[in-house]
Amino acid sequence: MSGLNEYRIDHVGIAVRSLEAALKFYEGALGMGASGRETVAAEKVNVAMLPAGGPRIELIEATEADSAVGRFLDQRGEGLHHVALLVPDLEAAVERLKTAGARLVNEPRRGAGGHLYVFVHPASTGGVLLELIQEP
Amino acid sequence: MSGLNEYRIDHVGIAVRSLEAALKFYEGALGMGASGRETVAAEKVNVAMLPAGGPRIELIEATEADSAVGRFLDQRGEGLHHVALLVPDLEAAVERLKTAGARLVNEPRRGAGGHLYVFVHPASTGGVLLELIQEP
Repeated sequence: MSGLNEYRIDHVGIAVRSLEAALKFYEGALGMGASGRETVAAEKVNVAMLPAGGPRIELIEATEADSAVGRFLDQRGEGLHHVALLVPDLEAAVERLKTAGARLVNEPRRGAGGHLYVFVHPASTGGVLLELIQEP
Repeated sequence: MSGLNEYRIDHVGIAVRSLEAALKFYEGALGMGASGRETVAAEKVNVAMLPAGGPRIELIEATEADSAVGRFLDQRGEGLHHVALLVPDLEAAVERLKTAGARLVNEPRRGAGGHLYVFVHPASTGGVLLELIQEP
């Protein structure tokens, strides 16, 4: 492992039609274990977390068709939805990205756990919805 | 971090049209550093690795249009291509997956570095091409 980067993968989000069905694969067939589930009302999703060596795989199910994940599933089907990186200083990262002309989906927001987060648009990142997170 | 799972995310692969253009974002705008590049002739790709806290982000560029990644780019455009998990015992994992009826893309193969790997088809995993790797 290199100490090259201060950025760490926090989680990989996978949009699925059914948490139950997806867990049947990830827990039942693959033998991973889910550490918890939560509902994120603001994003209209249910999430199951599978720890995977520090980072987590997050399985994400939409609670409403009219939601970002619901529309993703409708348009693209199940699959990788986003990659989240922990950054030490979100404000500095955002300033750097803006200076470079990268396209942000939102201004930095504070999540329920007190963490700051921002999404970078796939148009800037090689087709990947990239979430940057600064821990509280 | 939970000790729940023996499986660890090794890398997240992102298919891009141009390594140069993608590195302009990941190195230039985001401030990550690439630890190395390699050409994997058997897969017809050039790869740049960005360490991210243990796991890596791998940017993958096709060297030929007639390749798995070339076809992926042609059909779906740039974006997340696969997630790779390190597993302690690939043979046991494969047996478990087969018993559960999961669809494997190939039988386990040995890579250049001596590691064993197998791909699980997106049809079984919630739309994700999943690579399982056992270190040498």
